[in-house]
Amino acid sequence: MENFKSLKIDRSSPNSPVFNLYLNRPARMNALSDDFFTEFPKALAALDQSPDVSVIVLSGAGANFCSGIDISTLGSFTAGASADRGRAGEKLRRDIKFLQDSFTAIERCRKPVIAGIHGACVGAGIDIITACDVRYCTSDAFFSVKEVDMAITADLGTLQRLPAIVGYGNAMELALTARRFSGLEAKEIRLVSRVFGSKQEMDEGVRIVAEGIASKPPLAVIGTKAVLMRTRDLNLEQGLDYVATWNSSMLISDDLAEAVTAFKMKRKPVFAKL
Amino acid sequence: MENFKSLKIDRSSPNSPVFNLYLNRPARMNALSDDFFTEFPKALAALDQSPDVSVIVLSGAGANFCSGIDISTLGSFTAGASADRGRAGEKLRRDIKFLQDSFTAIERCRKPVIAGIHGACVGAGIDIITACDVRYCTSDAFFSVKEVDMAITADLGTLQRLPAIVGYGNAMELALTARRFSGLEAKEIRLVSRVFGSKQEMDEGVRIVAEGIASKPPLAVIGTKAVLMRTRDLNLEQGLDYVATWNSSMLISDDLAEAVTAFKMKRKPVFAKL
Amino acid sequence: MENFKSLKIDRSSPNSPVFNLYLNRPARMNALSDDFFTEFPKALAALDQSPDVSVIVLSGAGANFCSGIDISTLGSFTAGASADRGRAGEKLRRDIKFLQDSFTAIERCRKPVIAGIHGACVGAGIDIITACDVRYCTSDAFFSVKEVDMAITADLGTLQRLPAIVGYGNAMELALTARRFSGLEAKEIRLVSRVFGSKQEMDEGVRIVAEGIASKPPLAVIGTKAVLMRTRDLNLEQGLDYVATWNSSMLISDDLAEAVTAFKMKRKPVFAKL
Amino acid sequence: MENFKSLKIDRSSPNSPVFNLYLNRPARMNALSDDFFTEFPKALAALDQSPDVSVIVLSGAGANFCSGIDISTLGSFTAGASADRGRAGEKLRRDIKFLQDSFTAIERCRKPVIAGIHGACVGAGIDIITACDVRYCTSDAFFSVKEVDMAITADLGTLQRLPAIVGYGNAMELALTARRFSGLEAKEIRLVSRVFGSKQEMDEGVRIVAEGIASKPPLAVIGTKAVLMRTRDLNLEQGLDYVATWNSSMLISDDLAEAVTAFKMKRKPVFAKL
Amino acid sequence: MENFKSLKIDRSSPNSPVFNLYLNRPARMNALSDDFFTEFPKALAALDQSPDVSVIVLSGAGANFCSGIDISTLGSFTAGASADRGRAGEKLRRDIKFLQDSFTAIERCRKPVIAGIHGACVGAGIDIITACDVRYCTSDAFFSVKEVDMAITADLGTLQRLPAIVGYGNAMELALTARRFSGLEAKEIRLVSRVFGSKQEMDEGVRIVAEGIASKPPLAVIGTKAVLMRTRDLNLEQGLDYVATWNSSMLISDDLAEAVTAFKMKRKPVFAKL
Amino acid sequence: MENFKSLKIDRSSPNSPVFNLYLNRPARMNALSDDFFTEFPKALAALDQSPDVSVIVLSGAGANFCSGIDISTLGSFTAGASADRGRAGEKLRRDIKFLQDSFTAIERCRKPVIAGIHGACVGAGIDIITACDVRYCTSDAFFSVKEVDMAITADLGTLQRLPAIVGYGNAMELALTARRFSGLEAKEIRLVSRVFGSKQEMDEGVRIVAEGIASKPPLAVIGTKAVLMRTRDLNLEQGLDYVATWNSSMLISDDLAEAVTAFKMKRKPVFAKL
Repeated sequence: MENFKSLKIDRSSPNSPVFNLYLNRPARMNALSDDFFTEFPKALAALDQSPDVSVIVLSGAGANFCSGIDISTLGSFTAGASADRGRAGEKLRRDIKFLQDSFTAIERCRKPVIAGIHGACVGAGIDIITACDVRYCTSDAFFSVKEVDMAITADLGTLQRLPAIVGYGNAMELALTARRFSGLEAKEIRLVSRVFGSKQEMDEGVRIVAEGIASKPPLAVIGTKAVLMRTRDLNLEQGLDYVATWNSSMLISDDLAEAVTAFKMKRKPVFAKL
Repeated sequence: MENFKSLKIDRSSPNSPVFNLYLNRPARMNALSDDFFTEFPKALAALDQSPDVSVIVLSGAGANFCSGIDISTLGSFTAGASADRGRAGEKLRRDIKFLQDSFTAIERCRKPVIAGIHGACVGAGIDIITACDVRYCTSDAFFSVKEVDMAITADLGTLQRLPAIVGYGNAMELALTARRFSGLEAKEIRLVSRVFGSKQEMDEGVRIVAEGIASKPPLAVIGTKAVLMRTRDLNLEQGLDYVATWNSSMLISDDLAEAVTAFKMKRKPVFAKL
Repeated sequence: MENFKSLKIDRSSPNSPVFNLYLNRPARMNALSDDFFTEFPKALAALDQSPDVSVIVLSGAGANFCSGIDISTLGSFTAGASADRGRAGEKLRRDIKFLQDSFTAIERCRKPVIAGIHGACVGAGIDIITACDVRYCTSDAFFSVKEVDMAITADLGTLQRLPAIVGYGNAMELALTARRFSGLEAKEIRLVSRVFGSKQEMDEGVRIVAEGIASKPPLAVIGTKAVLMRTRDLNLEQGLDYVATWNSSMLISDDLAEAVTAFKMKRKPVFAKL
Repeated sequence: MENFKSLKIDRSSPNSPVFNLYLNRPARMNALSDDFFTEFPKALAALDQSPDVSVIVLSGAGANFCSGIDISTLGSFTAGASADRGRAGEKLRRDIKFLQDSFTAIERCRKPVIAGIHGACVGAGIDIITACDVRYCTSDAFFSVKEVDMAITADLGTLQRLPAIVGYGNAMELALTARRFSGLEAKEIRLVSRVFGSKQEMDEGVRIVAEGIASKPPLAVIGTKAVLMRTRDLNLEQGLDYVATWNSSMLISDDLAEAVTAFKMKRKPVFAKL
Repeated sequence: MENFKSLKIDRSSPNSPVFNLYLNRPARMNALSDDFFTEFPKALAALDQSPDVSVIVLSGAGANFCSGIDISTLGSFTAGASADRGRAGEKLRRDIKFLQDSFTAIERCRKPVIAGIHGACVGAGIDIITACDVRYCTSDAFFSVKEVDMAITADLGTLQRLPAIVGYGNAMELALTARRFSGLEAKEIRLVSRVFGSKQEMDEGVRIVAEGIASKPPLAVIGTKAVLMRTRDLNLEQGLDYVATWNSSMLISDDLAEAVTAFKMKRKPVFAKL
Repeated sequence: MENFKSLKIDRSSPNSPVFNLYLNRPARMNALSDDFFTEFPKALAALDQSPDVSVIVLSGAGANFCSGIDISTLGSFTAGASADRGRAGEKLRRDIKFLQDSFTAIERCRKPVIAGIHGACVGAGIDIITACDVRYCTSDAFFSVKEVDMAITADLGTLQRLPAIVGYGNAMELALTARRFSGLEAKEIRLVSRVFGSKQEMDEGVRIVAEGIASKPPLAVIGTKAVLMRTRDLNLEQGLDYVATWNSSMLISDDLAEAVTAFKMKRKPVFAKL
């Protein structure tokens, strides 16, 4: 896989179907740079397409998950803007959509992306983790929907994805106050599924979960992710019809035969790569 | 009421407006058979239409709530499929929609359906309870969105209904990991409203809740269920308009007059059957 | 600002950008009268338009937040109704929409409205607080979605707004049982963000939160409220596009410049009124 | 196939895959009776399930297509209504939904339903034809969205389906004026696809179109109907995703192989029944 | 009724339930002034509430229907704008919504509004007529979606309402080219329902149509308008459910009894005012 | 600009802001090859980004517009498919979405794309033109929604985009019958905006329209396209809010100043490139 400036990829262990993707500017608390926004979707697309990869674990190198967008990247928005207010607005709208799209790459990736969060997870860090499929954190992790303090209406996904995860009331309260909250509270409001006592415990715990998912039938795993995501936008009847149509194509697979056989023979199933 | 192979119906007590509906194949942990899928909507329609019935309590006979779809029923999907891939897909899609529709009968029933869950509630068991209106369980109940382990993208309602109940993040984590979780955790993530110490306590507790609802004005009870369900698919403005239109028809009723009178006279109100 | 019969407005402290809005019929436990429904939207519009106001705290005068709609107001619905069933229905529908609209004024107000709840919050009280942006309560507050007991399908917003805040399952259970629940449970199900030990502590705590929000860049504050509200009705892609379009207009502001400058100079930022 | 009181079914010609379904109360201008509403969905379900049937032609026996709902059926709505205004309203709502559902059977039928219209097509006649897939008429056919004249807000589908066919402006004008319009105007506003000079010409013309569709690959025919109907309720991106999912199941079929082979060999393709 | 600067109201004839509402700045080709935007919703609300009014005919005084927004009104948008780009944008957004809301008053009016168009109907003139329920014009009327020529993305309703009336393709072509088109073409693309040879003929023709609608049962007339408008935003199933709920409240009326009786007795029905 | 195998680009005339994009496999009637699907989005993105380009005219080289997808490209779908039915389905779904996305590039292009159609426009040709903004054709052009004849449920956009252009009824009739229809009928059903007598006349006519649009203020042109497209997916209230938000960013531009000034000075306005 390609080399990245702002990211690092490694394999959880030799031959493991679990790959680690690191935000990798530890000296800047993994603040997101210009590089990041082009590299991140590339990295996820490569991992998605590789048959060796089943599950991706996203975490931060160094002492933190992510401190938000680098202030110099923010600055590049205003620099060189057209003197025409209208043209400047049109350009800014496209720039924001470009940044959004970089994070949405997590959802375009068919394979599950699990966030393991420690230290700071602030501003754009929240945008990233809300786009992930599962979230875990350490007890010393801390979070803040920080944008309002920087005079920004959060525009990279938090306001769209957070309410479905933590409820509309919590989302409003956190976004209006920008207050810092702990890993424990993140668990209470269901932003994360579990809190680990230390970074090491989390790494180990997340690895076990990831390998567990990676051992499951891959078609059903990506189907579950795809259908749950699609269902957000459909009403109940449409959602039921959609999954019926999906499964009319993908239910009858070698994976199903293998799962049933293994179940009857009480052995561990083995599935082909995807 | 008709006799069923896969179900049993009894009255909570003589003359009670609360009826118990049991999944009734205890020897198979109430695995859902072919019979079930035709009988279940019939049973619910009959209960809905009977003026004697105000509230339905759904639970499992024997030691469990439900262990999922019977593996032989699953097998009947592939048996006898057309040799033509396209025709087989078209048939499979209709079969899945038929199964879905059987569970949606819970929502078509105007009267509240309360699930009382003990022991295993796995796979299709989750599909069923997410379609119920209120859920209670015992402390030794356990749950699993099990489908992915059987190489199935859950297609009978769980992926559509669970996110609205437990949040999108929890739903994704539970569906991807298929992990077993306890009654206590079910309460924490709001899948159930209350956990009881034993089956006996739950039966008693649920009976009290059910009789409480059954004593309320029936038009307002079915209106509350209908409007809340409809509101899932409407935006805020549409939802407000809908309930205003609904009440322009059903607010001014004998029940309202009786409720107001009883309130003023400080006596217990008595409402006509529905 | 105008004088109101059913409401009272005062400033949190001289020159404070936080204004208190009180439901002010303490002798009737702040039951909502005919006056209320015309005065409430007027009061909120006036507060919204005043540049002196940044945040509004809504609470109840006396010992309670709100005991619901005054029974005499309810009565005025049926009094004088047309003898023609159809015309009576058409009129009733408009009356209900008028009442709904009075509460929706909280959402039309661009500035955050924080509810501080103590004592009873029952029936229409729930309709009101679910339309607020943030909710806090005292430990002795109690709540009930009471309408079903009065033979009413709740029609002033609770059934539309509560599920997004507490989850669909909780909303159904609370609306069908009309059971009373405590401030502590309100926190557990995320109806409120925090529980205070006493009215005095809450008043102080809410004031601090409100002044905190009031000290933030006002354009980003109203942007956050507006975008979160709008996002409820849009799917993910639409929501992302919407906030990008919004920020193409409002991101580049004096507030942003001030926030960045203050951040770099490590001083407290000062923002123009809105 | 079963015998019906209000309907007649015959085969277009021996062994033809085209079946004619007649509204069959010519003495009453095919006014829709109580019988009709239970028989119509049964007839369509039977035709849908029969492998002998590929296309259904719906027309009126005698001199007209349909003069609307029989006035005695209308009367049965009010007769026996509950004395309780609320209960009467709840019952009436279910009755209307039952009638609607009878017409929606046309859409539930997977196979194309073509309307051949002559003489009067009035009131519920419009509801029926707007639910059909293709519409043809004679030059002496006449139409009227008549409900408003009978003090009825049309409630059996016209207001929902007509705007998509003739445009919102035309639908409003026709529904508010209830004016009579000719077959020629029906063609101009695109309510029908073609106008024939006489009943005989229409019967022959419709037969040719129906047999043309019947000779096409049946999976693609029902796929086209299903996807177009579903697309009405989805946005563009959802619609594209849906048809891709549909075809991932049903595109690769024996029909496709046969169509390609026949195309290359320049012979008429022959497809298996569905 | 109040006196207006920019509008005139008169009764079609003494005691007629048809009222004429005129855009009344003929010297300026009825260009829309600041006054207009506050007066127009007031006038429509007054007409809506008056039981004497059944139908409203909207037309232009003098030689034209409407030449668009007055250029001085347009100018008032930029004048006095905040020097802060963000605050100026926020204010401009509210200003545009205020103007939009003035036109949407046509839809808030329960009673039908018929546009009679002669001479120029340009820019905001198109916004107005697309919000009307029925449109007629003279053969010498001409139309243009003119905004793009003034460097404006049309923002007062045309881009939202025109596609449903004339189709998406026509709407795009007309909006991108801003070309002038005739009354005849307006009829061909279904923007208007009929073209009259002269202003006099149109006035007479529209009067006849308006009095025709005014003679119909008023509950069904406003029900038809309301349901058709609401249906634009609902999918098919939701639309059917909505009208069933609506009619459960409003179908059984004195109007229905009178319509049926008059029909049986072959006399002209007489309906109470609304 | 890059060289393409399946496409050709030229400038309408030296320095013209109108660019012609040709489907360029005339020997194969411009059947769409594998190359096409990767080249087409690249070409449109390049044209979109070039400030020299204001409007794009899409037409076919040689004697036809487009005869559909090349049969060899169709074949590549089945070749090399996984032996696992489930995996083959999942791959096919992604392949179809890839092809769809190639056509949707027309909508992602901010600048107007005008189709000029002559000769055959069949199958995927219809998918292409329905994604264009404006359509013109010659009188000898002919059209067919041909897919059903090839045993394909049309899956590249026609079923999603055609109903909004020609109405749902016409779309169903054309898609079920696959019948050939003329340029004249295409005009009648509003698939095209105008029919020209010959290819030469069309080329000249389209050039004039294109240059007309190219002379208009570019921000308003792309705003009109963007807002009309977005509005397809929003309800009325959401659509109005969206365009108000859009214009709060882009209305106040140098283009607006120039348009107003030129209008007042009665000179031709000149706008900066975009």
